Amino acid sequence: MLDIEEFRKAGYAAIDRICDYYYSLSSLPVKPSVSPGYLSHHIPKTLPESSEPFNHILDDYTKLILPGLTHWQHPSFFGFYPTACTFEGMIADLLVSSACNPGFNWASSPACTELEVLMMDWAAKLLGLHSDFHNSSSKGGGAIQTTASDSALTAVVAARSLYARTHPTVPHESLVLYTTTQTHSLGLKAAKILGLNVRAIEVKAEDGYSLRGEALRAALDEDLKNGKHPFMLIATVGTTSSGAIDNLPEIKQVAKDHPSLWIHIDAAWAGVALSCPEYRDQLYHAEINEIATSFCTNFHKWGLVNFDCSTLWVRDRTLLTEALDITPPFLRTKEGDSGLVIDYRNWHLALGRRFRSLKLWFVFRSYGAEGFRAYIKRCIAMNDSFITELKQTKLLELVTAPSLALSVFRISPSALASSPSSTSTEPTATLETLNTLTKSLYSRLTSRNDILLTQTVLNGVFCIRFVVGSERTVLEDVRKAVGVLVEEAEGVVAEWRKESVGVDGEVVVQNGNAVV
Amino acid sequence: MLDIEEFRKAGYAAIDRICDYYYSLSSLPVKPSVSPGYLSHHIPKTLPESSEPFNHILDDYTKLILPGLTHWQHPSFFGFYPTACTFEGMIADLLVSSACNPGFNWASSPACTELEVLMMDWAAKLLGLHSDFHNSSSKGGGAIQTTASDSALTAVVAARSLYARTHPTVPHESLVLYTTTQTHSLGLKAAKILGLNVRAIEVKAEDGYSLRGEALRAALDEDLKNGKHPFMLIATVGTTSSGAIDNLPEIKQVAKDHPSLWIHIDAAWAGVALSCPEYRDQLYHAEINEIATSFCTNFHKWGLVNFDCSTLWVRDRTLLTEALDITPPFLRTKEGDSGLVIDYRNWHLALGRRFRSLKLWFVFRSYGAEGFRAYIKRCIAMNDSFITELKQTKLLELVTAPSLALSVFRISPSALASSPSSTSTEPTATLETLNTLTKSLYSRLTSRNDILLTQTVLNGVFCIRFVVGSERTVLEDVRKAVGVLVEEAEGVVAEWRKESVGVDGEVVVQNGNAVV
Repeated sequence: MLDIEEFRKAGYAAIDRICDYYYSLSSLPVKPSVSPGYLSHHIPKTLPESSEPFNHILDDYTKLILPGLTHWQHPSFFGFYPTACTFEGMIADLLVSSACNPGFNWASSPACTELEVLMMDWAAKLLGLHSDFHNSSSKGGGAIQTTASDSALTAVVAARSLYARTHPTVPHESLVLYTTTQTHSLGLKAAKILGLNVRAIEVKAEDGYSLRGEALRAALDEDLKNGKHPFMLIATVGTTSSGAIDNLPEIKQVAKDHPSLWIHIDAAWAGVALSCPEYRDQLYHAEINEIATSFCTNFHKWGLVNFDCSTLWVRDRTLLTEALDITPPFLRTKEGDSGLVIDYRNWHLALGRRFRSLKLWFVFRSYGAEGFRAYIKRCIAMNDSFITELKQTKLLELVTAPSLALSVFRISPSALASSPSSTSTEPTATLETLNTLTKSLYSRLTSRNDILLTQTVLNGVFCIRFVVGSERTVLEDVRKAVGVLVEEAEGVVAEWRKESVGVDGEVVVQNGNAVV
Repeated sequence: MLDIEEFRKAGYAAIDRICDYYYSLSSLPVKPSVSPGYLSHHIPKTLPESSEPFNHILDDYTKLILPGLTHWQHPSFFGFYPTACTFEGMIADLLVSSACNPGFNWASSPACTELEVLMMDWAAKLLGLHSDFHNSSSKGGGAIQTTASDSALTAVVAARSLYARTHPTVPHESLVLYTTTQTHSLGLKAAKILGLNVRAIEVKAEDGYSLRGEALRAALDEDLKNGKHPFMLIATVGTTSSGAIDNLPEIKQVAKDHPSLWIHIDAAWAGVALSCPEYRDQLYHAEINEIATSFCTNFHKWGLVNFDCSTLWVRDRTLLTEALDITPPFLRTKEGDSGLVIDYRNWHLALGRRFRSLKLWFVFRSYGAEGFRAYIKRCIAMNDSFITELKQTKLLELVTAPSLALSVFRISPSALASSPSSTSTEPTATLETLNTLTKSLYSRLTSRNDILLTQTVLNGVFCIRFVVGSERTVLEDVRKAVGVLVEEAEGVVAEWRKESVGVDGEVVVQNGNAVV
C-alpha cells in the first residue's frame, strides 16, 4: 500500500523501466517464446494474504510479464494492424488513471465530457469530416468507443433501433445486416450479438475485393422481393485482409433508391490517412461525407494514440440517444435535463467510460497536424519501398494492389519458373502449389522471432500481409524485413525444387488456375 | 514528439504532478464550479498545425483539466459509488499503456491472456466463488469487462443466444428479460440495445426493495400463461439506489421449477465485500454459488482497482463462446485452434481488449487479501459511525436499513415535530412535505463544493445516499459530513418552519401517508 512518497519513488522507477524497455526494444524478439500456461508456473494459485513490497512486484513485471508480451511497438512488427503508441499517450493514460472517474455524464466530471466533445471535433477536422459530424454542429457528433467492433456494434444497435421505430410491424427475424465477404469480423459479431441475419455480399478479386454497386443492388432487390428488410450496410474503407476500399461512389447511387439503409463506414485502420489531403480521393473522402450515417476510425491503430481509442461519428446524434438513452432518477442532473450538455453515457453501450480524450489532446498537440501527417506519409513511403524491393526479387508477388501502408503478397509463380534442372517451357504454378509454398513461407516466418507478419486468405488465395505502422519503424527495418523474406522464400523454393524433381529429373508442375 | 529521455523527464514531471494532486486533494473542492462549455473558452476549435512543447501541454492539464474534474478520490466524496483507485493501479495502467497492445487472443500477447486467467481465479478465490467459476476448472471461468453494464449486456447476449439455440422456433418478440424496479439501468439498457422486452418486477418498501420469490413466481406464471418466454433474470446483490439484496434463497426455490431461466447476479458494488467472510451470509454467498449462471462485481468500484475493471464469471464458458465466437482466417492461431489457450475475444463483445489484469495483480499483491479486507471493513465501520451520529440528530432518518457502506436517508418527521410555536399534539409530516424538504436539503448540498452526495427515489420517497468508499476517507471526514448535513438540515427545517407558520401562528401540517 503505497503512500504518496512511495508512489513517487515507484512511479519514477516505472518510468525508468519504460525507458529501458524502449532502449532495448529493437534487440528484443518481436514475439515471445513462451508456451501456453507459462505464467502459471511462476505465479501462485491464490493471492497472497499479506502485502508484498512494491519493488518485488515491479521486478516481477520485468521478469515475468515482459518476456510474455508480443511487442506491438517493435520496429519489426508488421503484423495485424499497428497499435502505434506514443510516450504522450502513456503520460495521458497515467494522468487519467490518477484522476480515476467513470465520466458517464457531464456532472460526473465535466472536464472529461468537455474535452471529448472538443477532441472529437479536432479529429473530425483533421480527417476532413463534414461539419454535420462535428459536435459543434449540435446535430451530429462524435464519441470515443473502445474498439472498431464496439463502434460498429453501437452503430448496428442504433440502426436496428431506428428501423424498429420506423417499421414497428417488421419482425426482428426479417431484418438483414449487409456486409461483404471481406468485412472485418465486427460485422458478423455484431449480428451474432444482436441475433440478426447477416448477408455477406460476395466481392471479387478483379474488383480488388471491393463492394460494387451492382452487387449491392442485386442483393437488395433479391432480399426485398423475398420480404426481407435490409436495414444497414457496413461498408469498409481499408479492409483488414487487404486494405480494400468498397466502391462508395457506386454505393452512393444505389443508396439513393434505398434511403432507409443506414450506411456505417468502417475505416478502422485506413481512416486516419484522411488526415493527408493527397490520399482523400482514393479513400472516397467526398462520398464518406455524403453517404455515411456513421463513420469509425481507430486512432489506436494507425493514429499514434495508445489503445484503446476508437472514434465514432454520427450524422445525427439523436440516432444514438434515441437508441440508448435510459435515465433513471439517480443519473438525472440539472445540466443533463436542461439539454445544455452531452451525456456521453447515451452515446455508447455501457454506462461508465474512461477519460480517453486526454490521449488525443496530448498526441494532437505534441505532434501537431503536421507531425501526424508526416508519420502517416512516412509509413506509406516505407511500404512503397517495401513493394519496390519486393518486385525486384522474383520470389514474391503482390496479390492485390497495395493499400496505403499495407501489402499483401505470396510466393510468385516466377520463383518457380526458372528451374535449374529444366530449360523447357516455363510451367505455370497451380493455386494449390502457390498456397502450399506461401504457407511454408509463413510457417518459416512464424518460427522466427525477429519479425512478425500475419496471414490472410483472399477468395482461396493464401497470403501474407505486411503493414508498416509502428512509430519506431524506420526504412532500415523494412529492408531487413525484405532480407528475411528473401532468405526464407529462397529456402521454400529450394525445398520445393528438391521435392518436385521427379524420377526422370524433370520438374513436376501442372498448368495452374489463374488465381488473381 | 518526445524521445526517450524527454519522456523520462516528462514522466517524472507527471508523477510529481500526481503527488501534488494527492497532497492537495482534501483541500480541493470535491466538485468543480465550472459551467457547461467552460473548456471551449480555453481550447482552440482546431488542432494546432505544429508541435507544441510538452511542458505546455502538461501545464494545461493542471490549469484547464484539473479544475474541471469531479474528484472521485476526494475524502469527502460520498456520491454515486466509489471508484476507489490506488497508486498501484496507476503504475499498472502506465505500464499497460507503455506495452500497448490489443490482446484479443493468446498469441497477440500471451502474458495478457495468461495473467487475466490467473487474476480472475485470484479474485474468485478472494470472493469465495465456487470452483466451477474458476478458470482452472476449464469449465466455467472469468474475464474482465469494462463496466457492470458491459458485463450484464454480455450475459444477456449469451442468455438470449442460449435460449435461441434451445428454442429455435420462439420469435425474438416473445422473449422477456426480468429485472426489478430497483435494478440498475443496466437491465433496461441491455434490453433496449438488444430490442428485447423487459419486465421490471415491482419490489416493496417492506421487503427492503428486495425481490421476493413469490413476486418472481407470479410474473413467471403470468407471462408463461400468455405465451411469453422469460429467459433471464438479472438479480441484484446491492442495488444502486439503496444497496438492496434480492432474496436469493427464495429465488432459488422458484428457479428450480424454471431450469432454463439464466440468473445473472449483478453485485457491481457490493460483491467485493464477499472477500470478508463475516458479510457472506447477508450477501447470500451460498446461493450465489448455487444459482448464478453468471456473476459480476466491479473491482473498479469498491475494490481499489482503477477504472475500468468489471469482473464477470460464468459457470460454463461455452455459454460465452457459443454466443460470441467468430473466427475469421486472419485471427486463427495454432494455439487457439488447439484449444490449449483461452482466446478472450470470444468472452466479450468487442475484439481488442486492454491489459486490465495487471492492475488486479499489482493491487492484490501490494494490499494482500488482508489489506483488501481491512479496507472493506474500514468503509463499513465508517458508515456505521455515520449512522450512529445520524440517529443522534433528530433531523435525519434512514429510509432503508443500511447496506454495508451505504446509507439512504431523508429529513426525519421528528425534525418537524417539536415546533417552537406550538405545544399541541405532534403532527405527522406528509410524504410530500418530507420529499420537498429532503429535496431542499439535497439542493443545499449540491450547491456546496466541500462534499458530494447523490440522490435517489425509492417508490416515491426522495432520498439522499451516502456511500463510503474513497481509499482516502477517514473517520474525521465522515464526522465532517454529518456536521454539514446537520447544518443544512437545520437550515431547511428553520426555513420550513418560517414558511409553514400560518396566519394564526400555528404550524400547518397534515397527517401524512405512512412512507416506510
